[in-house]
Parts: sequence; structure tokens; C-alpha cells
Amino acid sequence: MQLGFAMLCAGSVRSKNAISVMLTNVLDAAIAGLFYYLFGFAFAFGSPSNGGFIGRHNFGLESIPSSSFDYSNFLYHWAFAVSAAGIASGSMAERTQFVAYLIYSSFLTGFVYPVVSHWFWATDGWATAFRVDNGFLFGSGVIDFAGSGVVHMVGGVAGLWGALIEGPRIGRFDSSGRSVALRDHNATLVVLGTFILWFGWYGFNPGSFNKISGFYTSGNHYGQWSAVGRTAVTTTLAGCTSALTTLFGKWILTSHWDVTDFCSGLLGGFAAITAGCSVVEPWAAIICGFVAALVLISCNKLAEKVKYDDPLGAAQLHGGCGAWGVIFTALFASEKYVREVYPSRPVRYGLFMGGGGRLLAAHIIQILVIVGWVSATMGTLFYFLHKFGHLRVSADDEMADMDLTRQGRLAYVDHDEDESQKQGFK
Amino acid sequence: MQLGFAMLCAGSVRSKNAISVMLTNVLDAAIAGLFYYLFGFAFAFGSPSNGGFIGRHNFGLESIPSSSFDYSNFLYHWAFAVSAAGIASGSMAERTQFVAYLIYSSFLTGFVYPVVSHWFWATDGWATAFRVDNGFLFGSGVIDFAGSGVVHMVGGVAGLWGALIEGPRIGRFDSSGRSVALRDHNATLVVLGTFILWFGWYGFNPGSFNKISGFYTSGNHYGQWSAVGRTAVTTTLAGCTSALTTLFGKWILTSHWDVTDFCSGLLGGFAAITAGCSVVEPWAAIICGFVAALVLISCNKLAEKVKYDDPLGAAQLHGGCGAWGVIFTALFASEKYVREVYPSRPVRYGLFMGGGGRLLAAHIIQILVIVGWVSATMGTLFYFLHKFGHLRVSADDEMADMDLTRQGRLAYVDHDEDESQKQGFK
Amino acid sequence: MQLGFAMLCAGSVRSKNAISVMLTNVLDAAIAGLFYYLFGFAFAFGSPSNGGFIGRHNFGLESIPSSSFDYSNFLYHWAFAVSAAGIASGSMAERTQFVAYLIYSSFLTGFVYPVVSHWFWATDGWATAFRVDNGFLFGSGVIDFAGSGVVHMVGGVAGLWGALIEGPRIGRFDSSGRSVALRDHNATLVVLGTFILWFGWYGFNPGSFNKISGFYTSGNHYGQWSAVGRTAVTTTLAGCTSALTTLFGKWILTSHWDVTDFCSGLLGGFAAITAGCSVVEPWAAIICGFVAALVLISCNKLAEKVKYDDPLGAAQLHGGCGAWGVIFTALFASEKYVREVYPSRPVRYGLFMGGGGRLLAAHIIQILVIVGWVSATMGTLFYFLHKFGHLRVSADDEMADMDLTRQGRLAYVDHDEDESQKQGFK
Repeated sequence: MQLGFAMLCAGSVRSKNAISVMLTNVLDAAIAGLFYYLFGFAFAFGSPSNGGFIGRHNFGLESIPSSSFDYSNFLYHWAFAVSAAGIASGSMAERTQFVAYLIYSSFLTGFVYPVVSHWFWATDGWATAFRVDNGFLFGSGVIDFAGSGVVHMVGGVAGLWGALIEGPRIGRFDSSGRSVALRDHNATLVVLGTFILWFGWYGFNPGSFNKISGFYTSGNHYGQWSAVGRTAVTTTLAGCTSALTTLFGKWILTSHWDVTDFCSGLLGGFAAITAGCSVVEPWAAIICGFVAALVLISCNKLAEKVKYDDPLGAAQLHGGCGAWGVIFTALFASEKYVREVYPSRPVRYGLFMGGGGRLLAAHIIQILVIVGWVSATMGTLFYFLHKFGHLRVSADDEMADMDLTRQGRLAYVDHDEDESQKQGFK
Repeated sequence: MQLGFAMLCAGSVRSKNAISVMLTNVLDAAIAGLFYYLFGFAFAFGSPSNGGFIGRHNFGLESIPSSSFDYSNFLYHWAFAVSAAGIASGSMAERTQFVAYLIYSSFLTGFVYPVVSHWFWATDGWATAFRVDNGFLFGSGVIDFAGSGVVHMVGGVAGLWGALIEGPRIGRFDSSGRSVALRDHNATLVVLGTFILWFGWYGFNPGSFNKISGFYTSGNHYGQWSAVGRTAVTTTLAGCTSALTTLFGKWILTSHWDVTDFCSGLLGGFAAITAGCSVVEPWAAIICGFVAALVLISCNKLAEKVKYDDPLGAAQLHGGCGAWGVIFTALFASEKYVREVYPSRPVRYGLFMGGGGRLLAAHIIQILVIVGWVSATMGTLFYFLHKFGHLRVSADDEMADMDLTRQGRLAYVDHDEDESQKQGFK
Repeated sequence: MQLGFAMLCAGSVRSKNAISVMLTNVLDAAIAGLFYYLFGFAFAFGSPSNGGFIGRHNFGLESIPSSSFDYSNFLYHWAFAVSAAGIASGSMAERTQFVAYLIYSSFLTGFVYPVVSHWFWATDGWATAFRVDNGFLFGSGVIDFAGSGVVHMVGGVAGLWGALIEGPRIGRFDSSGRSVALRDHNATLVVLGTFILWFGWYGFNPGSFNKISGFYTSGNHYGQWSAVGRTAVTTTLAGCTSALTTLFGKWILTSHWDVTDFCSGLLGGFAAITAGCSVVEPWAAIICGFVAALVLISCNKLAEKVKYDDPLGAAQLHGGCGAWGVIFTALFASEKYVREVYPSRPVRYGLFMGGGGRLLAAHIIQILVIVGWVSATMGTLFYFLHKFGHLRVSADDEMADMDLTRQGRLAYVDHDEDESQKQGFK
């Protein structure tokens, strides 16, 4: 639970070129804190909900603690909300107005994300894994243990629309259409951030057992330590495999060893295993990581072809690998573990493990509704922000930032008697 | 417990301009380790004490473990001692002699701080919350759960005297008295440090339940997980609210968005909620954070007016917001939670919650005695250090450091064949 | 357990001059993840083993979880394996071919290290502390609680051979033989890395009780919280004492205060206390740290005399202080604590505590066999890698890297339209 906040740290230190990127990241955390507390948690888990679509109670955490929820659940889900917002801000870095960040963060963490988490994580959400009736959604529900879909796809799709609508950074694609890499000037920070995220992921994935316990018996922690350990192992194997595959894959393609390829691969592997980390065998996690790397490299190539600019590659990584993770879970979830982790649900498990295609069908629906919902809400928001000129910074400001960056100066507001002396750490 | 050490990390990486700042921070940790082990813990918790003023036993951790204490208690209190020393060193950065750091750190962690923690945290301290007799201190005792007063005010007041006595850094206030900002050249480090501190605060605040359990039954952890979760929520809300308020407040005043304002606000909110984090409602934590931001901005403006220079603003943040936190607790402590967290004390709770003014009176006394004791001890120490020329570095050294800083060179001791090639990370 | 991964982070951010150092560190983690999963864990703990020399079962984690092991044990031991590889890579930084890293890391984590951990940590290893028969190894077995020998010496000796065989970095010793310091250009990163390692050590040392519990009763955590706390205290005291002693020692020798001396000392103290942290009195830990500092300073001076170049001083620190830690444990292990931590073994305890010389004899054997085994395996590997030109980078490449470093440019592969504009964080 607490380790999830290490992710916030990482999010802020992956700043490429400007203090403003860090500011937006830290703001996401604080804004999410307030808005999720005031509105989001209620939309996510207020019970009973409106036909499973949206929660209706518990605004401002009233009725907490209850038989289903405690403060720790709130904190845990808050961390996920912050992650989703952070993912989106990565796609829109370096060219987005500050006011736009405030608006979309509040909307995402206060409304868009909580509704999705309600669908898949609340006991009365329409697509939850906990649903016991056999009729709806192929009688299956969705297994998204720690949020490949709920968190990573939501953040990835939101960021995708923001970045698409505001367009690529100036200079990212030259007049002949050739891609020019503008990123990763601070590989040290990228590595530091990646490791902190790696560390934090052990809070998110194995730690998600904390989410489940709250649903059944307050105060009764999920007793299966073996399952927690297994989840940490699958997380680790998926990440390592994806990292090595991405590193070697890029080497085959470009003849260069690049530590940031390794880092992206690692995070992509984590994003992919997040959905099924508790219900797959360790060897399946290796497959997950391997394919996640291929998905990541392919999405990145596709982005370049269509001239989509995403400074952290967030949409490709979280959206693409997240979607793969959702599919992967539907292919490899093992019967034994599904029974262990979701004891009261009708057992639907992975296609390749003999469980038939129902879980896969349910998961394809998950992908479609997430893409649809987030596109409809966040896409519309970004469109109107852009239309009224509140989304993207002016070309002058963007170029100025880039100049300040290239000269090694902080885009910063302290007055110092001799501005030209400022050395900046970028 | 362990998370407290993340604070040490943050303390060292908030270096502005010189390796020496980091060195002093890491030294604080090690010196405190030794001196608190040898003397401090005994002064703080050796029982029975001399009329509640100072402990008398357990030097060198003899009699540990006992029925009241275990090694984990020692480690926990050691972490707080290190924090107090770190706070003070922030006020005195960039212009203090190395030898002075060694002397004041040992004195602060070995004597001054432990005595204060004895008053308010030991079962037989004269102002403790655990005191069961009804006569003394308005029959109330003081509720300072995780140390707004005991840690933050002590560190803040100590640093205040050090910085006052040695005077502002050269160039901080120009000849016309106008303030010149010399700090925060490395906003990335500031953000990193702030997040690590945020992370660590979850060890300090919710983790302080570990301190209480040792007092009653060895090995019996405080069973109320709900209280721990609630404490994490109040901490989070106070920090986020203060951070956002400070950011917007400074924007209103200066028309600039500054991420370091956000960071200062966050930490000020944490420092303020620290006293009452376990005994207030979440909505009250929002008020705490909001006011903490106003206190922080006001203290900073006051510091500029009186030409008080504090490189990290530590005295304003920890001293000012810490004092507000002490008052806040006396206003908003709820009866239900006070009974829950301090079951054997006579219940005195917040003025605004119907508890009358006794707790407030006790807390005002707390502020007065902390300011008085720390001023008398540390103030005197700094005065004599200064009188004998052992406090402040020479003007030449200070200017040299600043030049080395501005030229991007490390003030560093390795010999390299070509000194002019050194690039420094500042 | 999870905190061990903070070490990985630290390992990667201690990069001196090149991205490649970080890349090798992160690679170690991932490669170890795969190879330890596939082979290493089986060699270490597969039971029953071949005469106590090497494990024979559990390849690919089959038969996990069993009555003796669970996933958490695997993860924990994996973290140690990664540490050993990371230690070795420090000695060989800045001049080793990428392919060599891949090969030696796989071999070290997949075979060499697991065999050593089998000898001393598996219940049927020939030199384990858990062995109950009284005949072998002076009827004593070896107490190496968290790996001064098993981890630090293995990594240190491996790195020693790699660094010896490939020779010093160009320019490290000039034509007159005088030593030229080329390291620690980024003291901030060194401090950050050191603190993260400090933090992580609390996962390794006190956390090693997790290793033991798995041996006796699955699911029964070692109940003696006092022992865990005591272990954290000894770890802390040894580190702080060693750090301060190293700092002052170097000041006496060179008249300079150097924060990196402090950091090296801290880590050396930790490496030394690692063997006996759970079985010695806190005051003994102070002695451990003090002597560790002397050992460290002496080993470093010896290295300079014989022109041995180790960029992070890893062999001196981990090998030298690790060996001291093994001896220290045999001198100061207290009877009471040995009975507490290793209840079923015949009690052999420290020479200075009245336990006779058997434990010391066993520990001297430990040092000899570790040095012998690692030298025979890794030394041979490095020799052949070197013979076929696969070990060290070409002189041109090494000089190029150094030039790029000195000009403040990242040795990096992204194409940027204007290469001369690249600012690097070093």
C-alpha cells in the first residue's frame, strides 16, 4: 500500500527537460488525493450502485469504515488513481498548459477512472470478477487483479487522446517526416525512476491482495502467503523477461544497446502482468513478458509511422502492454489459482489452460469498453480544451522551454542576481 | 520504523550547492546513532525519572529489552532524533563550520531532544498524554502523537538560533535590504527529496502506533488497524491540501507556479498534522493543511522582512507549521479517537469538538516550554560557538564555495589530473 | 525481502561516468532473475543434495511451494544472488565488454553463487549452521546469518579476479606509478545510492529471519521480534561506527573530509556485520564497525600499492570487510543469541565470549573455501574470456568513453539533431 507512493516519486523524477513536468506529476498526486477523497472513491465503491455502472454513496468517505471498506482500501485505490493520472501526463509532457493538467487530472481521478474501477473491482460492478450470477458477460466477469486494464489502459488511452489532439512536440518530426528523438536526455533519472517503480510494483501487484480482503471480511487479511509470494515471482519474471527481450530486440533492429530500452521493456512487462499476476504460473509470466516486449516495440514503431508523439511512450507502454496483459490473462489464467484468489466466483479460466473462450470474450469486452469510455470522456474533454485554446502551450513558449533546456538552464522562477550563472540539473 | 530512514536519504539529497551539505546530513544520522544509543535514549526513557524531567537509566541500552521497551522502540526514537538534527542543519546550511555541526548534533541528539521527548512521550514525563493523575498541567497532558512539537519544533527552534546567531549567507540580502533568492538550484533533487520524505512520513505518522504499544504490553501491537489507516489518510489529506494551497497562494502573490512551493507546502502540512494525525477526523486534516500553508507563507514573508536567512526554510516550516500543528490538535482532537488512541488517560479533547480549553492550555504550555528549553540550551551553545569563532565559516571560504558552485564545480577533495575538467552535479 | 531491491536501485545509480555502468547493473538484476529461477535456486536448495555439495532438484521452481520453501524464499535468495553479481560488476566497471558481463553474471548467479549458498545456508549443506551432527567441520558449522561470506566475499573475490585479469583503467596509475583518482565524480549519486543501500540493508539483515523460518515450519514466522529488532540495532551501530571511523581515519591521513569516505565506511560496516548481526551484542557491533573501517582503509592502501584498480573499491569493501565480518562473528557470537537464532544446532559461539576456538576454525575454513572456489571458477572464466579478447574493451573505446565523460556528454545512442547541444548529468 505504502509502496505505491514510491511510484509517485518515480513519476516525478522522470522529468526530461523541464521543471514543469515534475510539477505536473506532483500535482497529479495532490489533486487526486483531494478529488478521489471527495468524489472518486464514492463513484468507485459507493454501494449499492446504479445498475452496476456507478457508485452512489460514500462521498467524502462517509460511512468509512464499514463492513466492506476501511481507510487502507481508500489509500490503496487512491494510489491507483494517481497512477492513472500520472500515466496520462507522460503522454502530454512538454507542451501542455498547466491549467489543462489541473482540469483533466481532476476529471480523470474524480470521475472517469473511478467509474471504470467500479465496473471491474466493486462487488456490484457489472463486469466484476466477484459477480456470482451466471448470466451476464458470458457468465464470466473480468479478472484484472491489479489493473492492467483498469489503471494502465485507462491512463494510456487518456494520454493517447491528449497527445493526439494537441499534436507532436515541435521538432519531433522534421519536414521530411523523419523521426527525431528528443527524449531521454537524463538516462540516469530514467533508470532511477524505473527502479523505484519496480520496487513500488511489489506494493501494487502482490499488495493487491489487500484490495480483495476488504471485500469479504474486514480485518481478515488474505491468508494465503503463498499466493502473495507467487504474485511477486510472476511480476518479477514478466518484467525481467520483457526487459531483456526489449533490449535484445532493439539491438537487433538498431545495433545499439540502450539502457532506456531495457527500462521501457521492464515497465511494459510489469504493466502486462498486472492483470493476471496472481492467477498464472511463473512460466506463463515469462511468456507474458516476452510478448509484452514485442508489443511494445511494435507499438513504438507504429507511433513513429503515424507521427504520434508521446514523450514517455506512455500510451504505447501502458495502453499497448496493458491491453496485451488483459488478453494474456484470459489465455493463461490457471484454474487452480483462480479458485484460490476468487473463491466465490464461477470459475472461468484461461483458454490455453482448458478454460474455454468465455474469459477471453469477457476480456475483449473489457478492452472495448475501456477504450470506448475513456475516449468518449477524456477525448471529448481534450477536444474542447483544445478548441478553446486551453490545451497546448503556445509555440513560442514551447520553443523557449526547449532553448532553455538545451542551454542547460532551468525554466525556473527564482530570481538570481546573475541568471547566466545558473547551472541546471536536467 | 524502517521507513524513517528514507527521511535521512531525503535530507542528504536536498543539498543545494555543496557536497558539504550532504556530508553534514549523513553525519547527523551516524552521530545521532551513536550518541542516542549511548546517552539519548536513556535520558528520554530511562525509568523512573527525576521528577519527570529527565530519565536516569538505560544508558547504552542496558535493560533492553524490558517490559516496556524493545529494540524497535529504540530504533524508532532514534529516527526521530535524527530528524530533529537534520531539521536544524537545514537552517544552518552553506555557512557553518564542520566542527560546529559535530558539536551541536551530538548535544541535540544526546541531550536536548531526548529530554523533550521524555517530557511528552515517556510514561512518567511531566506533560505526557499518558499521565493518569488529574492534577498537573490542567489535568490534561499533551497529545503530540508523532512529534509536531517534540521533533519539528525542537529542530526548528534549534536551527532558528543557529541561523540567527551566525547570520545570513553572504549575498542573501543586498545592500538595499532586498531579498535575493539563492536557493533551489536543483529543483529535481528537491522534488525527489520531498517524495522520499512523503513516503517516509507514512512510517512516522501511522507508524507511531508502534511507539505506544511498547508502553503498555510488550509484543502486543496496537490492534486497531482502522486507526492506523485513518492516520495515513489524515496525513495524506493535510499534506495535499497544504501543498495545493501553498502553490496557489504563491501564485496569487507572485504570478508564478513554483514546484518548490508545492514541496514546501507538502512538508509543512505533514509537519502540522504530525501532532494530531491519529485523533482528528479526515475533514479536519484538510483544515490543518490549509492553515499550515498560510502559516508557512506568512512565516516566510516575516523571515524576509527581518532578514532571517534559512536556506531550506526549515525554521519557518518545521517550527512554524509544527507550532500550528500543536494548536490544531488542541482544537480538533475528537473525543472518540482520543479514547481510542490513549485509552487510559483522562479524556481531554479539542476545543472545537466540545472538549473545552484544557487541552489548548496544555498545548500552549508545550509550545512555550519547547521554545524556552531549546532556546536556552541550543541558543547558548551556538552563542559560545560563535563567540569563539567555531560556528561560521570564514567569508573567504563561503565565497569560495559559492564561486565553485556557480562555476559548476564540486567543492571536492579528489585529485584529478585536470581539475578544470570536473563537471559537477549540483 | 522487497527492500532488497532497493539495493538494485542503488547499484545502478552509483554510475561514475557512463550509462553503460547502469546498464550492466540493471542487466545483472534481470539476468539473475532468469538464471537463478532456472538453475540457481535448484543448485542452492534442491534437496537432497549430492553429499552437501550441490543441490539437485527444484529446477525451474518445480516442487515449490513445499514444506521447506515458498516463493518468498526464492525471491529472497534471488535478491542475494543479484547482490553478489552487482558487487562483482563494480570492480570491473568502465572497461569491460558488454558480452563479458552477460556471461559472467549468468555463470555467477546460476552456478557459482548458488553452490556457495548451498554449503552454508541449505539444511544439508556440508558447512551449514543447521547441521546437527557433531563430527564434521569441528562439529561447528558456520554462522553466516545474512551473507558476509556467502554474498559479499563471493562478489568481492569474483570482482577481484575480473579486475586483476583485465588490468587497471587507462590513466589510473601514471607512468611513475602514482595513483590518480578517477572516481566519484558524482558524490550526490554516491550518497543517494548509499542511503538506499542503508535502507535496503534492513531488509537483508533483520529480514534474514525470513530465510530461517522457511526451514523449520512453513508459514511460521520467526516469532522473536526482539531478535529482529536487535539485528537492526547491531546493523545500525556497525554501519555508523565504521562510517565515522573511516571519515576520521581518512581525515587524519589526508586532512580532508570526504563524504564518499563516509559512505564507503558505512557500507563496509554493513558488509562486516552481516554475518553475525543476529548473534552479537550491540556493543560488539560497535567493535565490528570500528575494525571494519581499519580493514577498509588498509585494503584500499594495499590496492594502491599493488596497482589494483577497482572503480567502486568493491573487492576491498565487500571482500575485505566481508572476511573481517566472518572472523568477527567467530569471536563475538554470544551463546544466548546463538541458541535463540539457531535452536537446533550444537551451540558453538564466539572465542571472546567463552565459546572456544571451534567456530573460529570453521569460519577460517569458510574464508578459504570461498576464496578457493570462487577463484577457481570465476578466475578461470575471466582468464579464458580475456585470452580470447572478450573481456576488456579496446583501448580506443575506453579512451573515447573517458573523453565523452570529461566533456560532460553522455555515452549515449539517441540521435539528436544537434549533438553538441547535449547536456549530460554526470
